[in-house]
Amino acid sequence: MELHFPSNFLWGSTTAAYQVEGNNYNSDFWAEEHADGSPYKDKSGDTIDHYRLYREDIALMASLGLNTYRFSIEWSRIEPEPGQYSRSAIEHYRDVLETCYQHGITPVVAMHHFSSPKWLMRMGGWASPEVPERFAKYCEVVFREIGHLIPYALTMNEINLPVMLREIFSKIGFIPPVGIERDAWVAPKWRESAAKLCGTTIENYFTFHMISDESSINILKETHQKARQAIKRIQPNTKVGLSMALSDIQSIPGGEELAAQKWHSYFRQYLPMLEGDDFFGLQNYTREVYGPEGQVRPAEGAELTQMGYEFYPKALGNVIRKVSKDLSIPIMITEHGIATDDDSRRVEFIGKALEGLQACLDEGIDVRGYLHWTTFDNFEWQSGYSMKFGLIEVDRSTQERKVKESARYLGSISQLNILVKK
Amino acid sequence: MELHFPSNFLWGSTTAAYQVEGNNYNSDFWAEEHADGSPYKDKSGDTIDHYRLYREDIALMASLGLNTYRFSIEWSRIEPEPGQYSRSAIEHYRDVLETCYQHGITPVVAMHHFSSPKWLMRMGGWASPEVPERFAKYCEVVFREIGHLIPYALTMNEINLPVMLREIFSKIGFIPPVGIERDAWVAPKWRESAAKLCGTTIENYFTFHMISDESSINILKETHQKARQAIKRIQPNTKVGLSMALSDIQSIPGGEELAAQKWHSYFRQYLPMLEGDDFFGLQNYTREVYGPEGQVRPAEGAELTQMGYEFYPKALGNVIRKVSKDLSIPIMITEHGIATDDDSRRVEFIGKALEGLQACLDEGIDVRGYLHWTTFDNFEWQSGYSMKFGLIEVDRSTQERKVKESARYLGSISQLNILVKK
Repeated sequence: MELHFPSNFLWGSTTAAYQVEGNNYNSDFWAEEHADGSPYKDKSGDTIDHYRLYREDIALMASLGLNTYRFSIEWSRIEPEPGQYSRSAIEHYRDVLETCYQHGITPVVAMHHFSSPKWLMRMGGWASPEVPERFAKYCEVVFREIGHLIPYALTMNEINLPVMLREIFSKIGFIPPVGIERDAWVAPKWRESAAKLCGTTIENYFTFHMISDESSINILKETHQKARQAIKRIQPNTKVGLSMALSDIQSIPGGEELAAQKWHSYFRQYLPMLEGDDFFGLQNYTREVYGPEGQVRPAEGAELTQMGYEFYPKALGNVIRKVSKDLSIPIMITEHGIATDDDSRRVEFIGKALEGLQACLDEGIDVRGYLHWTTFDNFEWQSGYSMKFGLIEVDRSTQERKVKESARYLGSISQLNILVKK
Repeated sequence: MELHFPSNFLWGSTTAAYQVEGNNYNSDFWAEEHADGSPYKDKSGDTIDHYRLYREDIALMASLGLNTYRFSIEWSRIEPEPGQYSRSAIEHYRDVLETCYQHGITPVVAMHHFSSPKWLMRMGGWASPEVPERFAKYCEVVFREIGHLIPYALTMNEINLPVMLREIFSKIGFIPPVGIERDAWVAPKWRESAAKLCGTTIENYFTFHMISDESSINILKETHQKARQAIKRIQPNTKVGLSMALSDIQSIPGGEELAAQKWHSYFRQYLPMLEGDDFFGLQNYTREVYGPEGQVRPAEGAELTQMGYEFYPKALGNVIRKVSKDLSIPIMITEHGIATDDDSRRVEFIGKALEGLQACLDEGIDVRGYLHWTTFDNFEWQSGYSMKFGLIEVDRSTQERKVKESARYLGSISQLNILVKK
């Protein structure tokens, strides 16, 4: 059976600057990696050298049949010191965008994907009330130069992630959260070292991931809105939104209230932030099930991914349906993926999830695109290079790219605009 | 009258990574620029964006008729953290070298031109006894990958500069020296700030320019020798040397002894360091005249360059003659230039200096090339963008290059291998 998608549907994949570009040593994450006692498993180093190899990489995406590429711009490259902007970095991203167009690829650009300039930590990091103004100014500088080449922009990626991290780590009495390694949390000595590498002290050191208390969330809200205004003032035609990581929150009897609380905390509390947005970036990986005692582990024998998430491709359609109840703007799937060494499971994961997505389209929900996380196996933050989320494998000793079956699968769906249901 | 030069004479110009590449924010100099109270007049920023535009730049040099390009490799790019090497940066420099060959240009490569990685300051900087080993290892990594493309290498640029700076600044009771702005020297508060930006404290903060006491000079000697050995082990055919800044030291009656002392201090004391070198890099800009009371100011009415140096092109030939007395290896002029807004003075400076050089050749002195400082108007360290040393002007708002008459003049000499004496 053939499932059809709307014409102009965006098919593509996503990367994040810090995870693929390499040598972003002006970023707070670089400091975290190199801090004494860092919980990061690997050094990002050159990652997959995408800052140098983007032309070949974009050509490869196009050759697969994909028509969209979402990437992020590294703030610390555009503004290496406060108020000092790099035209060289802007010219780089101009060429990335122009290369997309040369290959018939629509770019979707995130202005922030977790990493921030080291210098921001010297001013109090994301907890500083200066952030909205500074971030909006950075967006303004970029959009004044290359905004006409950016049809879709995300101000920030996964604006709700800090709150999700807090929920996870509040259990061990450590708020605000700063990472995902339990041992590292309870011994934050490494953060002192990271702060020093940023030229500051721990009192000022607040990365994006730590912004999970109420007043700081207001900073994020103001940041998003000021950035959107700055962008729209210069490029009214650019569609602007943000993205959220959203698991499919489910409940078993007795867990309904807790599930509703989680949904509020992870999604509904952010609704005022979206007022005025042009689209919503939805990012999904799995489901979370709640019972009377809290989150319920996946059933015995459930298939888990490398990240320990339950293999549950139905989650995508479910979440689309849930968010659509509260939204009057189009939805774009800006991330969806699976960490696995067995690429045939990725093929299955994509196919099944797209069935769910197509059902949502049939129900009249306005979904504009599906961007898979991620184009290449890359630097997965604290987990280093161990997580295989990519459609394309990379031999990092030679930087050779090797297309996986899943890339061809997604590419062929994109080219035909049809999913063959098995 | 036509003055002829040997066939295979190297004609070209010189740049230094930090001064032209842009965004070397992993370097100690970047910290110095951005320190509170920094004595640097400008921020280097993108400089002339040569890291991105090198292909066009090298093509331009070739189009002028130059056959040689001396540039430097930025240590902080190759080794962004101690022991962590960037293949991406190596591939960049591989492409720079290959681009040279595509254009028939012989590359001359300095492994160090003043700037060092920030992380080196966390280990005691150039005063650390670890430096020779670490620097040699960096050279080894580079030469293993791209050494076969490097026919001439300078381990370090102006190894005698720290001593020259000390001489200048010992008068104001400030040793070791760290800059050239008198006011900044006596208030080294900015160095504390620079150290902090490198993630360390002032006790560890010793940049290359500060290495002027006797035991530290031994570190430089060991560094040079270990680096040369590392290079020659991998590429025995690469000609290895170092460069020195050498004014033409002259005396008026009563100043003979002082002049001899200076010559010893600036040049002769380094002779043991050169044992085993393949060539000597001579860099000259002016003369210094000594009398019984010390250095004698240029006569009233003498023409001074933007740097305040006396316009004295005869210095080049004089210095070649002087160093040749102590050397049994070939000489290469690895820098010679003039900061001026009046390019016709540069043409005159080059022509007159080359007459002197050619006379040395006639006398049988083995001079292999003349590399002018510098290819482009660029970031002149503490003086920022105010000093115009370039053969080529750069409009930094557009990064457009504009060839000056002096570039055409040197290019035509190179093409004909003949200087027409006026």
